[in-house]
Amino acid sequence: MNALVNGIVSEEIAVSDRGLQYGDGVFETIAVIEGQCEHWVEHMERLSAGCKQIKLPSPDVQKLLVEAQQIIDGKQQAILKIIITRGSGGRGYLAPDLVSPTRILTIHPWPNYPTINSSLGIQLHLCDTQLSHQPALAGIKHLNRLEQVIARNEWNNPDISEGLMCDNQGNVIEGTMSNVFVVINNELVTPEIVNCGVAGIMRSHIMRQANILGIPMSERNLALNDVLSADEVFVCNSIIRIWPVRQLLDKHYKVVGDITAQIMNGLI
Amino acid sequence: MNALVNGIVSEEIAVSDRGLQYGDGVFETIAVIEGQCEHWVEHMERLSAGCKQIKLPSPDVQKLLVEAQQIIDGKQQAILKIIITRGSGGRGYLAPDLVSPTRILTIHPWPNYPTINSSLGIQLHLCDTQLSHQPALAGIKHLNRLEQVIARNEWNNPDISEGLMCDNQGNVIEGTMSNVFVVINNELVTPEIVNCGVAGIMRSHIMRQANILGIPMSERNLALNDVLSADEVFVCNSIIRIWPVRQLLDKHYKVVGDITAQIMNGLI
Repeated sequence: MNALVNGIVSEEIAVSDRGLQYGDGVFETIAVIEGQCEHWVEHMERLSAGCKQIKLPSPDVQKLLVEAQQIIDGKQQAILKIIITRGSGGRGYLAPDLVSPTRILTIHPWPNYPTINSSLGIQLHLCDTQLSHQPALAGIKHLNRLEQVIARNEWNNPDISEGLMCDNQGNVIEGTMSNVFVVINNELVTPEIVNCGVAGIMRSHIMRQANILGIPMSERNLALNDVLSADEVFVCNSIIRIWPVRQLLDKHYKVVGDITAQIMNGLI
Repeated sequence: MNALVNGIVSEEIAVSDRGLQYGDGVFETIAVIEGQCEHWVEHMERLSAGCKQIKLPSPDVQKLLVEAQQIIDGKQQAILKIIITRGSGGRGYLAPDLVSPTRILTIHPWPNYPTINSSLGIQLHLCDTQLSHQPALAGIKHLNRLEQVIARNEWNNPDISEGLMCDNQGNVIEGTMSNVFVVINNELVTPEIVNCGVAGIMRSHIMRQANILGIPMSERNLALNDVLSADEVFVCNSIIRIWPVRQLLDKHYKVVGDITAQIMNGLI
């Protein structure tokens, strides 16, 4: 069994589903480690916040947990993806009076990312595709991901593991599938997620971690030059955790930098 | 039969389809009148342009025409929707090496819009939701439509037939499901579709029509005040054709204005 749609084993959804028709929904990508969903509470909080932001009914988190365990089915390491859409119906963009959301759980094999990504760092592509400003959708993980698809398909060189995206005002925001942190003068800095970008679960976890470790931390605007002149750079998400960056354009960074190493060790 | 998926009668698509996962695709909404697809060539041109813009293989237009006739099945008046997605596969946002697009044709009853919308005009809501600037996606009709969903769900008053959307720099761009034209000093003006918005088939048709009728026409930036001080305003799309606007905020417009009437008569 690879997919559960509204609790039923199925690999298909209705063509009329608004998830397909309009990208009208939200999702979470969750690491299953030793058979358990990592950061489950945080993922459910963001999923609920996303539903609220696009005015979807709150998901039944207890039901999702039962279905998650059903589809994990004893697997020790896997990726669980949960999609909630506004379901079928409505006339055009107008939602139906009574929304009946579709919930889709799928389970995927753990990706075979090179282990040296964590130890020796990755090369980062600078994306031409820019993130547009849409405060109404910033922070949440919604299904409108064409910007990320276009950005990720700018390169097909397996030596490049991720792409860095700026907004259309030249601020560095995030990777195509990750958040970004830099170290400047021993301070850990990550871009604000206000006008665009996803407020990642691993990003929040790292910010808490920095606080525990007493590492100075701030969220603020970062220009590309700030990133290029930073002492350390890393990207993160729930699956890859942390990949230090060793190269962006002509800039080579120390890998693994001291503060990056402290954070990485703190996550274990 | 209401849906054809890759030529097969089916009302379902794979959960793994990138149309659902990422909104990774484009679509057309086509008026079927007297059993024929109106403006078929123009719709196919935009569909092809959209595929090119997001780097999807060109659709097989001949095959689409055969399938369109199959699903229309002699119906005299209906709406045909064609969706092309990047199909299933790929690791995350990266498309698979060999893309096998999904094509979905669905047929829908003609909507029961009040006929007075055309004769007495409509009331227009001014949307709070703004259109974000994304030149990489501007003009085409892609599946990332959350902005329109959020905007359309700002009101639920049946007396309001459409919502007017501005970009995040205060330029008026379009309706939630339509393009917009105004008449200022006997000139027909419609917003440029450069940073956001859909380059509608009916919009292009009206621009050609104005040219034939010798009505001065321009595409340029329009501020909200330009619209509020305009002599005539109308919205258009392939299904509604033209709805004159009689009210926006406190402003009442003459309905049907002279130039609007000329354009409407020219379309018949």
